[in-house]
Amino acid sequence: MSKLLDLVNSPKDIKSFDVGQLEELAREIRSLILDVVLKKGGHLSSNLGVVELTIALHYVFDFSKDRLILDVGHQCYAHKILTGRKDDFASLRSNGGIAGFPKREESIYDAANTGHSSTSASLACGMLRYGHDGSQIVALIGDGAMTGGLIYEAFNDVKTIGKKFIAVINNNDMSISKNVGSVAEYLRDLDTVRQPFREYGIKYYGSVDGHNIQDLIKAFTFARECKNSIIINVHTQKGKGYEEAEKHPDKYHSYSPSRAEGGSFSSCMGKKLAELAARDERIFAITAAMADGTGLDAVQKAVPSRFVDVGIAEEHALCMASGMAMSGAKPYFAVYSSFLQRAYDQVIHDMCLNNCAVTLCIDRAGFVPGDGETHQGVYDISFLRSVKNMTIAAPKDFEELNALLEWSADFDRPLALRYPKYTPVHKYSVHLPISEGSWEWLTPGGADIAVLACGAAMNDLAMSLYESKGGFDVINARFIRPMDAGVLDKLAGKKLITLEDGVMSGGFGSGVAEYYLSKGMAVPPMIIKAVDETKLTHASLKELMEMNGFTQEALWRDVARLKNLCD
Amino acid sequence: MSKLLDLVNSPKDIKSFDVGQLEELAREIRSLILDVVLKKGGHLSSNLGVVELTIALHYVFDFSKDRLILDVGHQCYAHKILTGRKDDFASLRSNGGIAGFPKREESIYDAANTGHSSTSASLACGMLRYGHDGSQIVALIGDGAMTGGLIYEAFNDVKTIGKKFIAVINNNDMSISKNVGSVAEYLRDLDTVRQPFREYGIKYYGSVDGHNIQDLIKAFTFARECKNSIIINVHTQKGKGYEEAEKHPDKYHSYSPSRAEGGSFSSCMGKKLAELAARDERIFAITAAMADGTGLDAVQKAVPSRFVDVGIAEEHALCMASGMAMSGAKPYFAVYSSFLQRAYDQVIHDMCLNNCAVTLCIDRAGFVPGDGETHQGVYDISFLRSVKNMTIAAPKDFEELNALLEWSADFDRPLALRYPKYTPVHKYSVHLPISEGSWEWLTPGGADIAVLACGAAMNDLAMSLYESKGGFDVINARFIRPMDAGVLDKLAGKKLITLEDGVMSGGFGSGVAEYYLSKGMAVPPMIIKAVDETKLTHASLKELMEMNGFTQEALWRDVARLKNLCD
Repeated sequence: MSKLLDLVNSPKDIKSFDVGQLEELAREIRSLILDVVLKKGGHLSSNLGVVELTIALHYVFDFSKDRLILDVGHQCYAHKILTGRKDDFASLRSNGGIAGFPKREESIYDAANTGHSSTSASLACGMLRYGHDGSQIVALIGDGAMTGGLIYEAFNDVKTIGKKFIAVINNNDMSISKNVGSVAEYLRDLDTVRQPFREYGIKYYGSVDGHNIQDLIKAFTFARECKNSIIINVHTQKGKGYEEAEKHPDKYHSYSPSRAEGGSFSSCMGKKLAELAARDERIFAITAAMADGTGLDAVQKAVPSRFVDVGIAEEHALCMASGMAMSGAKPYFAVYSSFLQRAYDQVIHDMCLNNCAVTLCIDRAGFVPGDGETHQGVYDISFLRSVKNMTIAAPKDFEELNALLEWSADFDRPLALRYPKYTPVHKYSVHLPISEGSWEWLTPGGADIAVLACGAAMNDLAMSLYESKGGFDVINARFIRPMDAGVLDKLAGKKLITLEDGVMSGGFGSGVAEYYLSKGMAVPPMIIKAVDETKLTHASLKELMEMNGFTQEALWRDVARLKNLCD
Repeated sequence: MSKLLDLVNSPKDIKSFDVGQLEELAREIRSLILDVVLKKGGHLSSNLGVVELTIALHYVFDFSKDRLILDVGHQCYAHKILTGRKDDFASLRSNGGIAGFPKREESIYDAANTGHSSTSASLACGMLRYGHDGSQIVALIGDGAMTGGLIYEAFNDVKTIGKKFIAVINNNDMSISKNVGSVAEYLRDLDTVRQPFREYGIKYYGSVDGHNIQDLIKAFTFARECKNSIIINVHTQKGKGYEEAEKHPDKYHSYSPSRAEGGSFSSCMGKKLAELAARDERIFAITAAMADGTGLDAVQKAVPSRFVDVGIAEEHALCMASGMAMSGAKPYFAVYSSFLQRAYDQVIHDMCLNNCAVTLCIDRAGFVPGDGETHQGVYDISFLRSVKNMTIAAPKDFEELNALLEWSADFDRPLALRYPKYTPVHKYSVHLPISEGSWEWLTPGGADIAVLACGAAMNDLAMSLYESKGGFDVINARFIRPMDAGVLDKLAGKKLITLEDGVMSGGFGSGVAEYYLSKGMAVPPMIIKAVDETKLTHASLKELMEMNGFTQEALWRDVARLKNLCD
């Protein structure tokens, strides 16, 4: 059966469609999204929710010269299908295929590479200030992103700029989890929502049924013709058109067709923290709208009074946690590595310079599959290792994460535990008790070459090569700061390979070199195996590891190279 | 003449005073602040503005168990004088003396170490959530801090917490410069200010004359007895009681009794950027409420249409700048190093992953006198050096800053120029043209030992020792990323000392070691001279340099140590 979508190679092709055709097009696009995402994985709920909205935007505006900025960017699928990428859409999130987030490299229709929340209004302000006279600047913002403070910094600027800006609020009462706090409440109430925006000099229009194309076209046409900056409040249903996702939009936020066997660090952390919280009333679990993703839903269920979701507001999460710690509480903030970047000054200024007993549970540290560059957790070692009073550890497996968490309950200073999306495979026979800065020899010792591995993926790689080839030692460098001085001193005459799933600049290997230099010792012959920042894209975990040289073959070549250096 | 202040050794001592005595006490405190600050330097305008407000707060509350959180913290002088520190107050901002910002180490009356803006409501939320049942939590927030997005993330959380919180808005229509944007406007208007806070479930009281102690006591007593969370809107005059500061509160924001002779990097930058902006209409100068401090007032005067002040909103400043660059503009964001921390995810996610031609003009990079730990610019090398697409340079003197800025106008990728509060003293005879990654030999070459110096203070130190002692080479490592591979390869057989006014972890010296390791070369015998994070306090520039080992004597000892290694 021939399809309307076959006729659509650019948004210009939908301009002649009537409303009935646009509705049919929405069904076809929704069906394509469902087909691909149920097979390949991806962001399902958010994308199913904005199909009509995206069609109406492209019908009313011309985003080859007007600009459409997608806040967070995880709702871009219909946009990509409409803008010349439908034939490649089955390659979504695959290495070399279509990215799951907007990419300027892919299309002139993608205005900005986005992946983190609450940036769209600021980017829009920048585009208003220069270069788009006569164009319309449209930001599509989920109501979940409306808790992020950056949005208000931008709104504060709109009146000053004095040029027209269109914000479309995609109001589905969800961020990733159910929305929280007063913003969610006032966005539900038409009268009050008008008022806050009036303060910013922004006209208000709404609310509009986000699945009624005719209403949407009317609203966007009004916005296009309007002289003022304007906010259109659109109500949509997350997961629309797929019953399972409509019922459980959080579960289908980021959908994966195959569940990792053997569990995840996230669920391991959540379970253990629930257990600790049950027996220690000082313990709180804090999330920025990511209860499911971080495993904190376990605490939410078991000890709801000590579970805190602040919405997408990482700065507040960590600053608030610091305030709790100043009062004697023991807060754990679970956050993805790439989103912790959003609270960096709170790490330094509030948590660490106040020497607060806050624990960061840094999830998705290292390689992150599918989501691409903006979501890789490759900077945290570098940006945390330099901060005063910080202690950083990375467990090799679930047992060690449990032991670190158990140990952390009595630790009274800033602490970061980092762990990846990766599921450990190696069965370790060594599990030494945790003490600050202590490393573990996983092999008997005595070899000329030692591999120092940080975290689960790196230890697994080192041990798998050790078991097949041998000829070197493996040390689990489970503390990144402080390092194990006793072990490093013992290794001074050896040759070293350091393994880390972070960038090289300022990373773990760099810290090993610093150790020897600061002791006035020579840096041993050493290979730092770290992430190549130019090789971070949307791909599988396995592909990302391979691209970045984390394979047995490549590691064996490094061992051989060092061996030759010895001779 | 005996003074009321002589009777005040703790806030308890003012509880029995009548209003007339409290007014007299205000005069005495104001006079003490003026005496000390005009001699020693410090934050004058903000502190003169809150004398009565602070007295009234301590009269009504008991902050030995209630908590007073001072947002930004630069308005703490009257608070310190009232809380047992009046006799040491003359040591303000001096090494070993009273800090210019709240310090938990100094007094139980200091609830949190603060120094950066817009954190108080978040800290208060944390204190509400744990451990202060029966106490009052009061945050004192300048209206300038109300542009920072973090405040709104916190307000969004207040209703959820369901406990009482008191916010006192110190409304003086200024941040450091004149306030900007819609928030400033709505804070001026009583009716509209009520409405935004009602959305957050927070009662509103105001406005109150911030210099009328009787009215202030009435308002704070109402707040104390109120069951609800409440905001008290207090109007004060910045610089109150000192005519010069009342007229020019921005000039007296941070007062220094002696102006640096020979100019500053800030004014050099501002002048040059004004010149560039005048001839290139793509160039914009952006500040987050720091036109004077950063030298951008020069652009504001010369090319006002391309000067942008977004208020205290560093995230927006940089995200907006990225949006401008995406549209073909050439924005320069001038910001203090310690405040750039507040926009770290915008550095990564918006500026660098989008490969935008934004230039960061990082002022107060390195040691910062007087303000203490929160204001030291010692982390930027580490947190920027790891970020994809970033280029970082540090000029040795004003001439080189001018040359870098001139060169930057045609540079089309992310760039950071870092320079200190320090005023250069050495007259350099070498000034090689700028090309990306190029270093300069300041000495003839050929010595066994080379000193690689980053930035003005470090080059001056190296050259002053070279001129008195000699026996080594000095290289101006003006690019921190990328480094000069040609020079480094040439130095492979030598002994090296790296000098940087940043922390060691992930810093410049660490990058030099990474260079050799990543090339498969041996790291030369090398001393990394960097900042000791435990030796960062409020002190003079000279004292900070000495404490951290940046003296000719210490450098000469390092040279001698390396020489012995050679033999």
